[in-house]
Amino acid sequence: MAQPLASWRSGKVRDAILTFVEAVTAQGGADFVPPPERIAVFDNDGTLWCEQPVQVQVAFAQARIQQLAEADPTLKDRQPYKAFLDHDLAAIHALGKEGVFEVAFAAHAGVTVEAFDSLSKAWLTEARHPKLARRYTDLVYQPQLELLDYLRANGFKTFIVSGGGADFIRAFAEPAYGVPPEQVVGSTVKTKIQETDGHLDLMKLPELQSFDDREVKVQNIGLHIGRRPILAFGNSDGDLAMMRYTLSGPGRRLALLVHHDDDTREVAYDREFRLSPLVEALDKADDYGITVVSVAKDWAEVFPPQT
Amino acid sequence: MAQPLASWRSGKVRDAILTFVEAVTAQGGADFVPPPERIAVFDNDGTLWCEQPVQVQVAFAQARIQQLAEADPTLKDRQPYKAFLDHDLAAIHALGKEGVFEVAFAAHAGVTVEAFDSLSKAWLTEARHPKLARRYTDLVYQPQLELLDYLRANGFKTFIVSGGGADFIRAFAEPAYGVPPEQVVGSTVKTKIQETDGHLDLMKLPELQSFDDREVKVQNIGLHIGRRPILAFGNSDGDLAMMRYTLSGPGRRLALLVHHDDDTREVAYDREFRLSPLVEALDKADDYGITVVSVAKDWAEVFPPQT
Repeated sequence: MAQPLASWRSGKVRDAILTFVEAVTAQGGADFVPPPERIAVFDNDGTLWCEQPVQVQVAFAQARIQQLAEADPTLKDRQPYKAFLDHDLAAIHALGKEGVFEVAFAAHAGVTVEAFDSLSKAWLTEARHPKLARRYTDLVYQPQLELLDYLRANGFKTFIVSGGGADFIRAFAEPAYGVPPEQVVGSTVKTKIQETDGHLDLMKLPELQSFDDREVKVQNIGLHIGRRPILAFGNSDGDLAMMRYTLSGPGRRLALLVHHDDDTREVAYDREFRLSPLVEALDKADDYGITVVSVAKDWAEVFPPQT
Repeated sequence: MAQPLASWRSGKVRDAILTFVEAVTAQGGADFVPPPERIAVFDNDGTLWCEQPVQVQVAFAQARIQQLAEADPTLKDRQPYKAFLDHDLAAIHALGKEGVFEVAFAAHAGVTVEAFDSLSKAWLTEARHPKLARRYTDLVYQPQLELLDYLRANGFKTFIVSGGGADFIRAFAEPAYGVPPEQVVGSTVKTKIQETDGHLDLMKLPELQSFDDREVKVQNIGLHIGRRPILAFGNSDGDLAMMRYTLSGPGRRLALLVHHDDDTREVAYDREFRLSPLVEALDKADDYGITVVSVAKDWAEVFPPQT
């Protein structure tokens, strides 16, 4: 790689990443980590792609609920569906992160995992961000794409550990981020086996199985990855336990936190964002040894160039 | 590879494997499958290593219960611990697969995942099979090691999907099979975060979270892998749903079933093995399109040569 992390501005944060990766990959060095143990975990919403004004999966659920309301008009008068149908952002935000995702997961129940994958891909191809008017998969953060590539070029295995639905993220993570489905950890719903003419399929149910947020992210890292990561990247209090767990292991570790402070190129927000607040992780970043990334100062580009 | 599958005898079964792999890897062919979709899943106990007279994890639990009984002698008079302490095979078998594994999981509760990993590795280094007098990790099936290598050389990603504990299998799967921890799906216990002096650790609890057997294997493939496998390999009725799910997808698929019918080189058993019976999968293999592998006829070697 001629110049890794080209969209990261020179400075403390970029240096911290480069120094960390050099240290853990230096054969014979004190901080060397063998490749199989080079596990990096990334939150998705707000860390790898834009989560404003609502997480993308919430917009996907809005579209689904609109479809469902055509078949069942009574949804228009029932909460929380009414909030989604009216695009009532205040009411949606008031549901909180788990509440809003539960609605999203329930809206897509009753289909096979393969059918859900097709629905997700079709919607992501058509849908556009309400303000930025680009496909959501074009609103991934360019510096993070470069970081994922740089880590993998240095023998890291990159995982997503997100509060969003694992199956939704799996529908685009491979083309968008180079992360295959089996390296996506996310929230999940219960499933059941359905047999039709001797064929077995896996159906998604409306009940939450795991809401992958806060301490559950650590438990799901244990469940899915089975190794403590050496690098964690998040952007909200939902990622704090995962960052602290990463830093609690022996040897050299790195935890990074995106702070969205650029109202010109993106949206500036932190503690007031009801759907995923950033309060404690920001206030205590220094105490915990978490490196704060400023979108305004540390990222030379935010999104990939328009083609 | 000069000669793939050297320990597989020439014949229908070896041909079925070779033909399948050639078909799905032939660029431009009707059955071509892109590398990211070449997912192969293997059961562990009885499919990749010897599970007689009891699954290895049951022997590990026996050793642990012996330790625990030194601190608490009342265990000697309480079932199911008494059965483990007395090496009472009939009583252990009577507990059934889920029952016996629940005892094993509970015996190892209250330690961090890292401490459990160390305990597992230490025990596997010392312990010997009661009859064959070799380390358990030397009692892996040589033909299966060759098959795993052959599949990976052909762009497959190999996963273990086992009723055994995921954390136990993760302690040896990488050196034994070339399967990293994050590609091990197994039974799991609940965990909790423990904070000590500002450090976060993940503790194993005595409660079962998921017993990865029968239809749950399919659900856990959805949870962990997020793609339907194109090859599945098992040896008991616990693997039947996973094999049928694999065969239910579109395009070319292969499901294989080890039938332990060699009482000279290993142990001949099937429907009477209480800890993991093989009945329906064997009786209906033809109906379901499952290829039955005879240890006696299809495997030229069973275990790796003694060194």
